[in-house]
Amino acid sequence: MAGEKAVPLLKDELDIVIPTIRNLDFLEMWRPFFEPYHLIIVQDGDPSKVIKVPDGFDYELYNRNDINRILGPKASCISFKDSACRCFGYMVSKKKYIYTIDDDCFVAKKPSGEDINALEQHIKNLLSPSTPHFFNTLYDPYREGADFVRGYPFSLREGAPTAVSHGLWLNIPDYDAPTQLVKPRERNTRYVDAVLTIPKGTLFPMCGMNLAFNRELIGPAMYFGLMGDGQPIGRYDDMWAGWCTKVICDHLNLGVKTGLPYIWHSKASNPFVNLKKEYKGIYWQEEIIPFFQSATLPKDCKTVQECYIELAKQVKAKLSSVDPYFTKLADAMVTWIEAWDELNLSGDDSAKLPNGVAQ
Amino acid sequence: MAGEKAVPLLKDELDIVIPTIRNLDFLEMWRPFFEPYHLIIVQDGDPSKVIKVPDGFDYELYNRNDINRILGPKASCISFKDSACRCFGYMVSKKKYIYTIDDDCFVAKKPSGEDINALEQHIKNLLSPSTPHFFNTLYDPYREGADFVRGYPFSLREGAPTAVSHGLWLNIPDYDAPTQLVKPRERNTRYVDAVLTIPKGTLFPMCGMNLAFNRELIGPAMYFGLMGDGQPIGRYDDMWAGWCTKVICDHLNLGVKTGLPYIWHSKASNPFVNLKKEYKGIYWQEEIIPFFQSATLPKDCKTVQECYIELAKQVKAKLSSVDPYFTKLADAMVTWIEAWDELNLSGDDSAKLPNGVAQ
Repeated sequence: MAGEKAVPLLKDELDIVIPTIRNLDFLEMWRPFFEPYHLIIVQDGDPSKVIKVPDGFDYELYNRNDINRILGPKASCISFKDSACRCFGYMVSKKKYIYTIDDDCFVAKKPSGEDINALEQHIKNLLSPSTPHFFNTLYDPYREGADFVRGYPFSLREGAPTAVSHGLWLNIPDYDAPTQLVKPRERNTRYVDAVLTIPKGTLFPMCGMNLAFNRELIGPAMYFGLMGDGQPIGRYDDMWAGWCTKVICDHLNLGVKTGLPYIWHSKASNPFVNLKKEYKGIYWQEEIIPFFQSATLPKDCKTVQECYIELAKQVKAKLSSVDPYFTKLADAMVTWIEAWDELNLSGDDSAKLPNGVAQ
Repeated sequence: MAGEKAVPLLKDELDIVIPTIRNLDFLEMWRPFFEPYHLIIVQDGDPSKVIKVPDGFDYELYNRNDINRILGPKASCISFKDSACRCFGYMVSKKKYIYTIDDDCFVAKKPSGEDINALEQHIKNLLSPSTPHFFNTLYDPYREGADFVRGYPFSLREGAPTAVSHGLWLNIPDYDAPTQLVKPRERNTRYVDAVLTIPKGTLFPMCGMNLAFNRELIGPAMYFGLMGDGQPIGRYDDMWAGWCTKVICDHLNLGVKTGLPYIWHSKASNPFVNLKKEYKGIYWQEEIIPFFQSATLPKDCKTVQECYIELAKQVKAKLSSVDPYFTKLADAMVTWIEAWDELNLSGDDSAKLPNGVAQ
């Protein structure tokens, strides 16, 4: 738009994390937007399989063997045979910002026909404040051409730092298996030209398909849980991260935005397979969500790690009665933080040797 | 849109309330949309002035003399020389739904060029449920082509009854005087194609310019306060109603939506005059909003009237220290409810004789 400020690229401050089991042909379409960035590819499934990455991209690639070697016994907290493994990439990144995208997501178009630079919009979202304490009816007040409306308290106009930017999807919407089964032909064709802050105290279903966050502000809360191989549940990895993240953002006065940018989600996953993965989650969430809605963190929890360890305790105390899985998950949450701190608080990077293209 | 269900007109169930001091030429543009409805015109200012209404509209008109005659001493709760007087129209209506619009608001256009039938969209909003308990990232899940996304709890998908539909404005945005002064040329040109529920526990700045509500569900909370003549404040009438309404909706499990429809707001009001009206509100709201954010209503408040009387008590107890005005306002809130019940709970309509065109 005319008059819009240039958006910084942040190319030395942002990693793109991609979980995958296949060749990354989808990157060709993203080349104009992603080529300046470093990619962290987390290869799921059979580690002997070779993942092809189109020429010209700067990347490191971790397979299961790498994860096991780098984390040792703590690798148990990283899911296998599930895209939840992507959070390993958040942990090994050294950058301030992360953008994560699924490998079945393509470049979407604005109603004008112009290609959407999703990453640029995420950067805009992350670099401008959020407004979690009061709702602005004209959406993001920091956007060009918008502002705070009459009646918005002046003391709140500085906003809160933005920790998370949750992007959306055109074409195949992110539906659960029952909705997929009931509405097999539904496509999302509505381009809603808005970014908004999810208010403090309100939970939302965070989808990991097209998601950016400030790793310094919220990274350790972005744990995608135990899903896939050997676990009773799948497709709740991003939901779990979203609930934990939102509770912690609310506690630490950080903002979560949702809306723009859109990506083009090309293909619906199999609803029958999804149903099998989801069905426990579908009834567990009826207890999990009230748990998170009423969760409060003590004032002395001042870092994300402290908040997360406290949340793990509460999960164990209050959700273990739902299913023994939550005891295991609570333990994994603690392991995740230990592993995070091991990789991020020590100055020693020698353990981190990806098998992909070295720099 | 192809496949959309027809929206009921509700012509015997909805009144359009218009506060004005001038001839209602603006209705010509609205004729195709408003002519089927009954209008309640609340004439502000000099009652001897004759307000011209274009031919063909069915209306009743109340001036200050009518208000005084109908309410007697209780007329003190209705503002004079301020569009806050519009709430008298809500009180005398016998319909289930109210749409209120300012006389400087015109028909806006969709990006496609099509005229927006604002009332039809408000009716859609009011007739479909709200989702105050959990955020849906694809906005209104009841809209054609949308649904609840993955991770939205199934137990919450029935939603809550919608009490309020808050519409927006293209062209002149609803800014406070300081923002008007700083950004005299800003226009809202962004058409955001979304309706969303304002989550439970979140306050918002409700603008009365383009507003619809279910009078049976929330009517008695839609009191626009004491503004204008003899009062220390103006331009906070709709804000006051919005704060009270939202707290009561949250308590009674009712929903508030914002977003579509847009109207075309033709002319900014004078920012210098506005500043004079607003300046006390601008600093008072820094205390009023935390008051409403922490206000809770006892469980035994089960009707809107009971909630409102309780809120009046809390206003008197907690805001009178801000300014003696709030003592007066709290008393007026009680008077408003007494007058509402007098007009609405008795079967006697004989006191209500408008001086406009009789039916």
